[in-house]
Amino acid sequence: MLVGIVGLGLIGGSMGLALQNTKLVKRVVGFDHNVAHCEEALRLNLVNEIVDFDDIKKCDVIFLAIPVDAIMAAMKNLVDVSGDTTIIDLGSTKEQIVNETPQVLKKNFIPAHPMTGTEKTGPGAAFATLYNGGIVVICKSKEVEDIHLTRAVQIFSHIGMKIFFMNPKEHDRHASYISHMPHALSYALANSVMRQEDPKSILILAGGGFKDMSRVAKSSPVMWSNIFKQNKQNFLDALTNFQAELEKCKTMVEKEQWAELEEWMKNATTLHKIL
Amino acid sequence: MLVGIVGLGLIGGSMGLALQNTKLVKRVVGFDHNVAHCEEALRLNLVNEIVDFDDIKKCDVIFLAIPVDAIMAAMKNLVDVSGDTTIIDLGSTKEQIVNETPQVLKKNFIPAHPMTGTEKTGPGAAFATLYNGGIVVICKSKEVEDIHLTRAVQIFSHIGMKIFFMNPKEHDRHASYISHMPHALSYALANSVMRQEDPKSILILAGGGFKDMSRVAKSSPVMWSNIFKQNKQNFLDALTNFQAELEKCKTMVEKEQWAELEEWMKNATTLHKIL
Repeated sequence: MLVGIVGLGLIGGSMGLALQNTKLVKRVVGFDHNVAHCEEALRLNLVNEIVDFDDIKKCDVIFLAIPVDAIMAAMKNLVDVSGDTTIIDLGSTKEQIVNETPQVLKKNFIPAHPMTGTEKTGPGAAFATLYNGGIVVICKSKEVEDIHLTRAVQIFSHIGMKIFFMNPKEHDRHASYISHMPHALSYALANSVMRQEDPKSILILAGGGFKDMSRVAKSSPVMWSNIFKQNKQNFLDALTNFQAELEKCKTMVEKEQWAELEEWMKNATTLHKIL
Repeated sequence: MLVGIVGLGLIGGSMGLALQNTKLVKRVVGFDHNVAHCEEALRLNLVNEIVDFDDIKKCDVIFLAIPVDAIMAAMKNLVDVSGDTTIIDLGSTKEQIVNETPQVLKKNFIPAHPMTGTEKTGPGAAFATLYNGGIVVICKSKEVEDIHLTRAVQIFSHIGMKIFFMNPKEHDRHASYISHMPHALSYALANSVMRQEDPKSILILAGGGFKDMSRVAKSSPVMWSNIFKQNKQNFLDALTNFQAELEKCKTMVEKEQWAELEEWMKNATTLHKIL
């Protein structure tokens, strides 16, 4: 099987490394509009070869590992690929991508979201085990042909992923609560601390909790601004719900309702019976 | 040197283990009002012996590793200890403790805050290297005698800590931003997600970012309710500043100001040039 990867950053580069370790894939070629990324990806052996976008079209499987709006643009350039080619996107939102999939691609397009990643970006951040043990959500359409779904399932399972099927609407709502909104909190935390605190105090006093909570605020602003845009209404709903919870906490502290505050925190600790 | 530890949970128990590994300390005895904790601490060798509170008073150094309001209560019961005994508290807030230190103890009391910890609690959570490599803030008063400060500095440095002196007012303000307010966010995040999402979706979709950000919401509600109480005004100020940042983010998404949103996130990522 010949696989082409569009976008050779953390997600695409790690996919390249993971695929080269499977028995399914013979050769992995890559494309990135950033020339420096292409050179770095080749040097790090993330892919076997760098090719033009037109050569990507000749692959058996094409992965789109680029920001969500770029995925929608790229799909318009893929309408002339063979119906035998499987196209898999790895974007973090799914509803708009599914809604805007060109009709001709609906039978061979697999919208997928691997729920893995780190705060790092670029080819240098890629590593072979990023996907191993992680969850991938697949939003299969009614129109998709079995051969393409089968291929996607085989590939994801061979790189060690646990597959979960969900419709795009549900995916986006869940992702807004469990992934997108928490990223906004981390960015807001980093900004509020930096506006109030001098760097020296931050450096000296930051313990593990603060480091953990601000870690995701290292993530790519371009990518996340794009995700918030694609999932705008769900994101705003999740944020509103979070704001209401935080306001509850603030009010209990203001009113010195310590027993109620403890109950509220106790409820929060039950999350870890699930996770 | 004979050391007595009041409170044998994560903080006190880890101190017991760390001290037994130093060349400074001959013997470590412990007290906890929870009998089950005493038995567990002894079984885990966190201390060499469990003693009564009256025997704690005979030690060369007494550590108070209990919630902040319990520290203030315990100090009233320590007014009759010898002036040669060094008393060190390990509480997370400092101003109120310093303000309420009995006059007779001011010469031998060292208010300290080790900026270490995990979300776990109890003797079973204690481990010997908790303090190694961490920061401890010492708020030395004008009245403190050199012999007691010297002792505290020796002990903290021998268990591998980096010492930083700060006044209690500054400590509490910094801690509210870098530790207390982020804990409230984590509790609010856990609560808002649990109110909106079914357990199965949380379990399946939660990636590393969400797990990191909700980890500190495992922390003891009793302890943290107490910390918010002791540091009420700083905590509320920090929360208000955070809320303003988050509202900025929300407004930019509502108004679709994507370039401004990216700038705001880019500013947040600069935190990691410091950390």
